[in-house]
Amino acid sequence: MSQPTAVQSQFRVIDLIRKKRDGGALSTAEINYIVEAYTAGTIPDYQVAAWLMAVVLRGMTREELAALTNAMLHSGEVLDLSFLPATKVDKHSTGGVGDKTSLVLAPLVAAGGLYVPMISGRGLGHTGGTLDKLESIPGFRVGLSVPEFQRVLKACGTAMIGQTDKIAPADRKLYALRDVTGTVESPNLICASIMSKKLAEGTDALVLDVKTGSGAFMKKEEDAVHLAELMVETGERMGKQMVALITNMDQPLGRMVGNAMEVVECIEVLHGGGPEDLRELCLHLAAWMFFVGGKTKTVAEGKQLSHEIIASGKAFECFRHMVELQGGDVSTIDDPARLPSADHRVDVPSPSVGYVTEILCEHVGTACVILGGGRERKEDSVDPAVGIVIHKKIGDKVSSGEPLCTIHCHSDAQAARAKKLLEESYRVSAAPPAHKPSLIHRVIHKGEK
Amino acid sequence: MSQPTAVQSQFRVIDLIRKKRDGGALSTAEINYIVEAYTAGTIPDYQVAAWLMAVVLRGMTREELAALTNAMLHSGEVLDLSFLPATKVDKHSTGGVGDKTSLVLAPLVAAGGLYVPMISGRGLGHTGGTLDKLESIPGFRVGLSVPEFQRVLKACGTAMIGQTDKIAPADRKLYALRDVTGTVESPNLICASIMSKKLAEGTDALVLDVKTGSGAFMKKEEDAVHLAELMVETGERMGKQMVALITNMDQPLGRMVGNAMEVVECIEVLHGGGPEDLRELCLHLAAWMFFVGGKTKTVAEGKQLSHEIIASGKAFECFRHMVELQGGDVSTIDDPARLPSADHRVDVPSPSVGYVTEILCEHVGTACVILGGGRERKEDSVDPAVGIVIHKKIGDKVSSGEPLCTIHCHSDAQAARAKKLLEESYRVSAAPPAHKPSLIHRVIHKGEK
Repeated sequence: MSQPTAVQSQFRVIDLIRKKRDGGALSTAEINYIVEAYTAGTIPDYQVAAWLMAVVLRGMTREELAALTNAMLHSGEVLDLSFLPATKVDKHSTGGVGDKTSLVLAPLVAAGGLYVPMISGRGLGHTGGTLDKLESIPGFRVGLSVPEFQRVLKACGTAMIGQTDKIAPADRKLYALRDVTGTVESPNLICASIMSKKLAEGTDALVLDVKTGSGAFMKKEEDAVHLAELMVETGERMGKQMVALITNMDQPLGRMVGNAMEVVECIEVLHGGGPEDLRELCLHLAAWMFFVGGKTKTVAEGKQLSHEIIASGKAFECFRHMVELQGGDVSTIDDPARLPSADHRVDVPSPSVGYVTEILCEHVGTACVILGGGRERKEDSVDPAVGIVIHKKIGDKVSSGEPLCTIHCHSDAQAARAKKLLEESYRVSAAPPAHKPSLIHRVIHKGEK
Repeated sequence: MSQPTAVQSQFRVIDLIRKKRDGGALSTAEINYIVEAYTAGTIPDYQVAAWLMAVVLRGMTREELAALTNAMLHSGEVLDLSFLPATKVDKHSTGGVGDKTSLVLAPLVAAGGLYVPMISGRGLGHTGGTLDKLESIPGFRVGLSVPEFQRVLKACGTAMIGQTDKIAPADRKLYALRDVTGTVESPNLICASIMSKKLAEGTDALVLDVKTGSGAFMKKEEDAVHLAELMVETGERMGKQMVALITNMDQPLGRMVGNAMEVVECIEVLHGGGPEDLRELCLHLAAWMFFVGGKTKTVAEGKQLSHEIIASGKAFECFRHMVELQGGDVSTIDDPARLPSADHRVDVPSPSVGYVTEILCEHVGTACVILGGGRERKEDSVDPAVGIVIHKKIGDKVSSGEPLCTIHCHSDAQAARAKKLLEESYRVSAAPPAHKPSLIHRVIHKGEK
C-alpha cells in the first residue's frame, strides 16, 4: 500500500461521520483525509470523537482498517532500514504480567543472524513495559536518536528504544482522544494503533504475542483471536510476513514481576536457565521469528536454532553487547546481583493446605504498580528495585502458611496494600485444578506451522 | 417529573459514555449530570460528541428520553403562565413546504377561549418558518420580552414569538454540536430537542403535526410515526395532554409558498375561504387543540366550534388584535394587497397534457429558498415578497403549456434556477395517479379520537 496522497479538501468531515454512522465503508482517500487533517489540526476533536464512536459501534471493513493503519503509519517518519544486509523481524506483545520476552528475544534472534529493530512502550495500567525494565540497568539509554538506533542495530543486530515523537504522531493524538471518549475498546482501533507504530519501525516480519486471560487486556480468548486475525491480515496487506500466537496470561509469566527482577530472570534464560514457562515461550516466539524472517524453513528448525544459540552463549553475548552500546553498565549484566534490589521481604502465606487453582493475574500486576514498580499515571516515575517473586503457580501444591509469593520492597508499611491484593488474588483449594493452563492456545498464520 | 438536582460531581463522563456505548441505560441523575455540566461548560465538546453518537447508534429507553427532555427543559427559564385563567394549548409542526397553519390556529383557538402561547422558529433548509412569515407584516415584532409576551397573551389569548436565549440553553448548545457531528438524525435527540423547547413555554396541552412525505424531514411514514410516539409519550410523562397527527407533505400545503404570500392565504382561511387542504388541516388541528385543551368533549365538537369561530369573524379579529399588539401594521391585515409583493411573474408550464402524479415537494421549498424566500445559511436575510403560487396539485388535470405554478419574483434572471427546479419537481403523466394523498394519515393519541 502506497503512501497516502496530500489532504483532499473535497471532503466534508460531516459526510464521512454520517457515512460511518449509517454503516457505510469509507474509501482510502476519505480515511487519509480524516487522519491527515486531524493530525494537522484542521479537524476538531469533537468531530473525530463522533467518528471514533461510530467506528466502535459500526466496525470497519478490512480495507478500511488497512487504510487507517497505513494513514497513521505515514503520519510521521517511517524508518528506512534497507541498508541492513538481512531480514528485519520484530515481536509485539499486547501486554501482560511478568511478560519480559522481548529482552530475551531481541538478542537471541539477532544472534541468529536476523535484525531486530525494537521500538517498545512503557508500563501503563497493571502491565509492565519493556522500557522500564531496560532502564533498571544503570545507564541504559532508551531514548536513542534514529541515527544512533540504526548504528546500534547494525553493530549488534538489535536495538531497543522508545517511541519517538516523529513516529506515527496520528496514533499519539488519536489515542489521547480515544482515552477520554470511551473509544479505546475497539479491535479495529487497537489494531491500527499497534500496527501503525510497529510497521513504522521498518520491519519485514512481525510475530504477535496476543495475550488472553485474567492478566491480559483481553480476558476472553475469542476477543484475542479476533484482534490477532485483524493484525495478521493488516500486516499481510502491507506486505509483511505475519504470525500471531494466542498465549496464556492467567498467571504471571516466569517467577519475577518487577523491573530489575525481570531483567535478572531474562539473563537466566539467556544463560540457558530460568523458569520453564518463560523459557518455553521465548523459544517458541524466537522459532516463529526465525521462520517468518526466512532464516529457517520450518518453525521446528527455528526452535532448534534458538536452543543452539542460547547454548553457544551467543544470545547472552548479544544482549551484553547491546546493553554496552546503549550506555548500560555491563557489570550488572555480568553480575545481576549488582542490579537495583530491595532488601525487605514480605511473604504472602497460603491460607490453607491444597493446590493453587486460580490467580487473579491482573491483581498481581496491580500489586507491583502499588509497590512503585509501575505507573498509576503516565507521569509517575518507576522504582526499578521493587517486585514480587512468584513461588507457586496454578497447579502447584502448597502447605498451610507456605509462601505463595514474596514481596521485595523497602518496608512493611509499603507492602501492606500489595500484600492484601496478592492474598486476594490466589485461590487455594483442596483439589487440584482440572487442568493447568496451556501456554500457547493457538497460532494464527496463513501457511504451515 | 421534578426539576433536576444540582450537578452530581460523583460521575465521570467517561463511565457514562462507556455505559451508553455498551448499550446500557443511564440513570436520571447521570443524564442530568451530562446536560448540566455540558451547559455549564465543564464537559468538553468531544466527550459529549462521543456520547451523542453512542445515543444515535444505541438508542435510549423511554425513561432516559424523559430524563433528557426534562434536564434540557430545566436548563433555562420555564415560563410560568399559571396567572392565565384558562388552559394553555399549543401546536408544533415538524416542518414542511407551505406549512402555515400556526398563523390560523393561534388566533382561531384563542378566540375559542383557550390560551395559545406560541414560541416558533425560523425557516432553515427547504422549510419555511413561522417567524419569517410573521415578519413579512410590516412592524411585526417577534422578539418580545417575556413580560411583553405574557401581556399580549393575556390581552388577546395568543402571542407568537421566537425562542429567547433563556429558554432551553442546553438544547441550543447540544443542537449546535449535533449539527457538526452527524448526530442530528436520531428520533430520541429530535424528540428531546422539540419537547424541551415546547414544554418550556408553559403549555398544558400540545398538538403535534408530524409531517411525512417528499417535502418533510421524515420521508418515511414509519419514521414519522416513531418520532410522534416518542414525543406523545414524553409529553404525557411530563403531565401534558398530548396528541400527534401524522399528516401528508407529498405536496405543498395550500397554494402559496413564500412569506407574505402565505400570510395572505392564512387571512383567506381566517375569513372562511382559502384552499381546501389548508382549511381542512387547520380545522382538524384546531379541533384537536380544543379537545386536548379540554374545551370540547369530542374532537368533532372541536371541529364544529372551529367552523363557528371562523364564521363569526372572531378568529380573524383575534389575529388582527395580536398583530396590532405585537407592533404590526394592521392596514396590511385589513387589505392584504398592501403586504410586500413581487411584481414579476414567471410561469412554469406543463410539458404535456395529462395529470400531475407527483411533486418533489422538497424541491419546491428549495426553489423558494433560491428566490430569497428562505435561508441557505442561518445568517441569511429573507425576502418577504417572493414566492411560488401552486396552481396544480397531485391528481389535477393539465393541458400542455398550462402553468403548473407561477414564480413571484423581481426579474427573469432571478427566477432561472428556481424555474428549472420546479420543472424538475413536477411529474405529469397520461394517466391520473392511483390515489390522491390523504391529508391525515394517522392520529396518535392514547384515548378516544
